[in-house]
Parts: sequence; structure tokens; C-alpha cells
Amino acid sequence: MSTIVPPAVPSATLDHQFSLQNLPYGIFSTAEIQPTVGVAIGDFVVHLKNISDLLLNEVEGLTIEDIDSATLNSLMSKPSTTWKSLRACLTKHLSTPAFPTSSLVPLTSVTMHMPAKIGDYTDFYSSREHATNVGIMFRGVDNALQPNWLHLPVGYHGRASSVYLSGTDVVRPRGQLQISKDDPKQGSQHGPCKLMDFELEMAFFVGGPPSPPATPITMAEAEDRIFGLVLMNDWSARDIQKWEYVPLGPFGAKNFATTISPWVVSLAALEPYRAETSAGPVQTNPSPLEYITDPNYSSYDIALSVSIQGPSMSSPAPVSRSNFRNLYWNVKQQLVHHSVTGCNMQPGDLLGSGTISGQDETSYGSMLELCWKGTKEVKLGDTGEVRKFLRDGDTVVMEGGCGGKEGVGRVGFGEVRGKILEAGSKVVKGEGEGVWKQA
Amino acid sequence: MSTIVPPAVPSATLDHQFSLQNLPYGIFSTAEIQPTVGVAIGDFVVHLKNISDLLLNEVEGLTIEDIDSATLNSLMSKPSTTWKSLRACLTKHLSTPAFPTSSLVPLTSVTMHMPAKIGDYTDFYSSREHATNVGIMFRGVDNALQPNWLHLPVGYHGRASSVYLSGTDVVRPRGQLQISKDDPKQGSQHGPCKLMDFELEMAFFVGGPPSPPATPITMAEAEDRIFGLVLMNDWSARDIQKWEYVPLGPFGAKNFATTISPWVVSLAALEPYRAETSAGPVQTNPSPLEYITDPNYSSYDIALSVSIQGPSMSSPAPVSRSNFRNLYWNVKQQLVHHSVTGCNMQPGDLLGSGTISGQDETSYGSMLELCWKGTKEVKLGDTGEVRKFLRDGDTVVMEGGCGGKEGVGRVGFGEVRGKILEAGSKVVKGEGEGVWKQA
Repeated sequence: MSTIVPPAVPSATLDHQFSLQNLPYGIFSTAEIQPTVGVAIGDFVVHLKNISDLLLNEVEGLTIEDIDSATLNSLMSKPSTTWKSLRACLTKHLSTPAFPTSSLVPLTSVTMHMPAKIGDYTDFYSSREHATNVGIMFRGVDNALQPNWLHLPVGYHGRASSVYLSGTDVVRPRGQLQISKDDPKQGSQHGPCKLMDFELEMAFFVGGPPSPPATPITMAEAEDRIFGLVLMNDWSARDIQKWEYVPLGPFGAKNFATTISPWVVSLAALEPYRAETSAGPVQTNPSPLEYITDPNYSSYDIALSVSIQGPSMSSPAPVSRSNFRNLYWNVKQQLVHHSVTGCNMQPGDLLGSGTISGQDETSYGSMLELCWKGTKEVKLGDTGEVRKFLRDGDTVVMEGGCGGKEGVGRVGFGEVRGKILEAGSKVVKGEGEGVWKQA
Repeated sequence: MSTIVPPAVPSATLDHQFSLQNLPYGIFSTAEIQPTVGVAIGDFVVHLKNISDLLLNEVEGLTIEDIDSATLNSLMSKPSTTWKSLRACLTKHLSTPAFPTSSLVPLTSVTMHMPAKIGDYTDFYSSREHATNVGIMFRGVDNALQPNWLHLPVGYHGRASSVYLSGTDVVRPRGQLQISKDDPKQGSQHGPCKLMDFELEMAFFVGGPPSPPATPITMAEAEDRIFGLVLMNDWSARDIQKWEYVPLGPFGAKNFATTISPWVVSLAALEPYRAETSAGPVQTNPSPLEYITDPNYSSYDIALSVSIQGPSMSSPAPVSRSNFRNLYWNVKQQLVHHSVTGCNMQPGDLLGSGTISGQDETSYGSMLELCWKGTKEVKLGDTGEVRKFLRDGDTVVMEGGCGGKEGVGRVGFGEVRGKILEAGSKVVKGEGEGVWKQA
């Protein structure tokens, strides 16, 4: 646990989101530096290649590809012992005045890129409150939670190619919409989504060497197979989803865009912020099956927020405040269940949490819940603006982080941000790999 | 349309599955040749690198990576004009006695590998008969087909990492099974799948340059974005599926293994076998929405079969005979719908057809349908053996091809084959990339 301010980086105070406790990994570039691996500290990025002699000398198993590549996949594919040594090595050197400041690049001068080439992307549905809210809206209060929900982390495979980086402009999708709200037999029409939504999520990257087929990951192994977490906005077209999702799940309503934040925060960084889940210290009603029982059942106290900035507003207004603890199934349980039938997990796979809603209605993680299926308006601060679903030109900003613990450095995730463009808009590649902007 | 036997390859008769009409692409290796691109012709594989001077000289836009790589992704990423010129060039030279036989490698000496690195894998559900059969079994005759089914090709995202090559041994998965057949409220237990099944499918690889976000593929563009087809067995654990799939679709019941055949057959090869779908010459009840209306609505007459060989049997016994025509939504409609909301399609993406069942019960494409949910036994030829679902040690063989048209060469897909190993078995890498065998 790092409780000091690194002498060579005085900006990295305990209150900075990139304190010495954090040390998140990302892929950055500048006018002079091609996309490569960096670690955020205070107002700077450590250019790892610049201190490669030191790192390769002290960290067993580390190779130059791990610290100088255009993605983190090589580093992710190493055993967790390597990531842990690398973190220890960085912490040790950053704690001394002799840390080579020539390796520090100002954050203001960098462009961020997709942290990894994502092999497969999966999304879970692990907030009991979210699943219950959606269940009440679509099936009524008596059948809100499906019978399987408390027995396994329900999840589905998503689209990896359309996971983009924060800053990407998202074009309102066109698709099939049910003509009559109540009578599906009247069929569908083609048009722009009218119920455009966000989903407040976090997601983790799988780490460690690729697992062969038919080799489930056990609960004891799970933490060593989680490289780190990011913020995620799982953009959702609710009207398209409603019509298409029976019986095989969401498809076009989700596969147009998912956005993640650029900095990947390790479980080691989050360790001081380990906390009970909001479901309590243990799962008992029912107890999970043995393979998925976590003897150290817990989560992390990560405060999360969602804000919306309309085109005429000068800054984003908060619409939701939630917490990563508001998940019934934790990351270890998600990973273990994902592989239980023998699915081969690969470094660079991205596993999303599902929408993170809490009990309080100010903590709901989607407009669907905040406006309760369109039955009430959500105020955007004191601007006089209200929303049910998202309008063209709206920017959604999600932020997250851990902090406020006496003597422990903050661990921030930065933000994931995206603007809705009107249907039919064209986008072109933005500055960073994985970023798309209005043409 | 190729109607001749290539003079330099007399084995490639019109009756050979790899006639001059076919020219499927695959990745092969031998003791001397590292994995590279080949084209099957008769009893041989053309080693394209060996005739690279000729090909690069005559085919505009073709690069050495397209014809000498360990995957077909580079070739797939080229515009369809390049694949078409390459096919024309190979056809021209193979039609002359001067074709360099030094480039021919006997099929008996090659090891096949995964044809492509699959970015994303999607599976559709496009046989009306299959969807109806499953619907009757699970929801009764009156609600068999969901209201959306005739309006859009229902599909879901699958797991790309667990798509393996023909020859892979498939370990019976363990997972969560509902305790009481009729009362989900009694919860689940962990154990080996008892209702192990195959699904007879075909799948196509997307081709052409990657599409940017928010750029739907139109019906007019669709054929140029389909590189070619393979056979596919979408292994399914029916009991795991039944418990887990509500409301987000199949997950662990499918993500342990999917197997494909190694040779990729182009639409150009299939063109002489274009045929009406079994649903008739037009879709009228209802007519599809305009974006998904195919003015040349049709399919390909590809005969398909499934056979099972039990451990004590000397050869596989046929259990199903179907046809690719038994799909209501064709490959163009699947691709166009997949991208309608703006999903960015990438070369190397694999899109599965869904189980291909016909009207006749001998044409059902899964054991679930053939044994009608366990209510009847399926005979394995005259061996005296019967099955409901698959047993450990059973080998499933799917074959497919077009033929029997006067004066036109056959177009075969070869086979996709796999053996079920008992739960808990270990597998190791087999000879070809993407093949896993019992340890």
C-alpha cells in the first residue's frame, strides 16, 4: 500500500487520481513517441521503454514487448507474478528521489489509444437491482428476477470489434422497431432508435497465459487471471433491443458501440479499497454452488458517476451516482463461471459487469431505469433541461475512483466520454487508435 | 463456370469434390512447408507461394502476404475484385497443360490449419423449421415462432476463441443443470452435461476491407463482402442451455466448442448451384423491410449430411440429410441485418447460419429435434445402436457439397469431424493450428 508522494513527481499527491497507489497501465503516444506502454503517475506518464534497462533487469520474465508495444496484450499474457513484480519495481523506484524524470511525459501532451486488442468481449448482468428493475418494467413485480439469476452470473457474448475508446462519437443507430408498443404481431419498421441509452458499467481484462480448451479457471486461480479494470459505457438502443432480443439476447441494440476508458487499473491498486458488496458479507439465499463460492466474497469500493451535457449546456450535470460494490456477482465469480463449461479464456478478453445500479433511485445506471421506462423526467442539474432518453448532441461522461481512506492514495479511473450524433452521421478515425469522431 | 478437367491435374474430374469449379482456399503445411495458403484441386493442393511470380504479375492488388501467410485474413481483407481475379487467374492456368505441377502438393501429405484468425463470431437462427421445432418443444404449437422471427434474421454473438478446426476432440462440458425438469425454482446443480448435441450449420467468412463504424452494408454490397463458406458444427449442451439462456441467450452451453471445416468455398464456386430457397422464390408473408429485401432472393443447393460413429462401430451411420436451401434468411440478408445498426464488419469475422433443418424429420439438424426432446430413439443405421443425445466416444461427421448438375464440376466442402470425450478429459494441441486432441 503506497502512502507517500513520489519525490520526483510531486504532483502525485495522495489526492491525485493517479497517486502512487494507482499506477494504471495505458497505451499512449506523443508527437515524438509512437504508441507504447505507459503508467500514469500524477500529471505525468512514465514512458516504460525509457527505463527498460532498469525494468528488464529487475523484473523476472519481463520482455521488451511487454513494455514497448502498441497494445498491452503481451504484458497481459504474462503470469500475474510478472505484473506484480513490475508494480513493485515501479513503486520502489518512484519512491526514491533518483527516479529518472527524463522518462516522464506530461499527461497534457499525450494521446491515448485502445489499451488492448480485445479477443472476445462478454457482458454480464450482475447488479441485482438493475436486473430487478428491468424485470419489473418488462414482466411485472412477481416475475422480476428470473429463476436462474441468483444461481449464476447471467451473461452473454458481445461484439469485440465495436468496443471503442473514450472520446468516440456514437452515431444513433437505425434498426427495426416494433410498430405497436403492446402488440408485436403488428410487426416492425426501420428507423432511427428513439430510446437511446447508456449503461454504467465497469469491465476487466483477462490476464495470464491463454487457457487451453476444457480447463475451467477455479476460484483460487481467478484473481491471478484478472489484469485490471476500466470504466465502460455499454450504449444501448432500447427500442431495437425490445423487438429483437427474444429468444437469443441483445444483438444490434448493442453491437454498434461500447466505449471504455483508457487506463487499466490493477487489482493490486484496488486492494486497500476492498469492501463488502452491497449484498453483504456472504451470499446465503441461496448459497452459490461450490465451484462459484468465493470464500473471500467481496468487491471494491469504487464510487461511480454519470453526467450528461446537452448541446446548450456549459458543463455535464450528474444524473446518477453508483458504486462498484452494487454488484451481487463479483469479478472472480464472473470469470470462474465464464470458463466453467471449458471456454478458453485469453489475455485481452474483456468482461463487462453489466449495468451497475444500486437500491436508491439516484444510483440507477441507465436512463431506462432513471426515467422508469419513460414515465418520468430526469433533471439535468438546475439547467432547466430534462431528459427521458438521450438526444442528439448529448455527451455522456462516466467517472470512477476510490479515495478518502486515511493515508492511502486515491485510485482514479479517469473517465469514459462519448457524444451522440444524429442517425446517418459519418465518422472518421480520431487521433487515438480506437477513437472515432464526427466526419 | 468450369466444365473441364485440368490437364495437369487429371484427378480433378467433374465428380471430384475439388473439381476445377471449386478452388477452395485453406491453410496447409507439410513436413517441409510452413503453414501457408493453398487451393485444393483434385487430390492436390496448389502451393500458391510456389507460383507467386505468375499470380502477383497477373492479379491486380494481390500482395505476397495474401498468398503466403499462416491465415487467410490478408487475402480476405482485399476487395472482392482481387479474389475474383485470383480465381480467374488460377482457372486460366489450371486449364492449360503448362500448369507448373511442381506447385502441387498431395492432399495426403498435408496438415490443415484454421483458415483465419476469427475476429468476431456470430450465430444466426435462420431455419424456420428449426426455430419452429424448438419453439413447439419449449413453448407449444401456438407460440412456436416468436413474433420477430419472420421480420429479421434472429442472431446472437458467440465466442470466437473457441471456434476450433475439424478433428478437434470435444470434452463434454460440466455446468449448471436445472434440478427439476419442470420447476426452475428448485435451483441447479453442477455436473456433466447429459444432453450433449450437435448443430448442423454452415458459416461464412466476411471479406473486404474493414467497415468503419456506422456504415451499414447494403443488400447491393453484400455479395462482395462474403469471402466464402465452411461447414460448422455448433456443439450444444442442451441442459445447460435450458437453465442459463433466459433472458440474454445461450452462453456456457455453446462457448466450450464450435468446429469448422478447413476449406473455404467462394460464392463464385457456388454460383452454378444457386437455387430457390425451400421457402420459395420470394418472401411475401410478410415481405421483409426494404433494407433487407433481396431482389435476387435465393440460396445454394448444397446437400448436407450428419453421421455418428459410436465407439464400437466401424464407420459412421447417417442420422440426418439436409440442404443449405433450408434457410429462410440467406447469407446476404444475415450480413446486411448484422450491420444495420452500424456494427463494423471485419474481414475474418465468421457468421453461422443456425441449425439447418428441413421439413422432413430425416432432415432435422440436431439430436434435440431428431429425438424430439428425448421422446424417441434415433437409429444408427442397421448397427442396432440407438441414440437420443451424444455419448462419450461418439464421433460426429458432417459433410456437404454441390453436384450432379450436367457438365458442371462438383463443389465439395469436405467434412467437419469431432469426437466427444468424457467430462474432465484433458486435451493438448494437435497437429494443425486450431486442432485439439485427447491428451
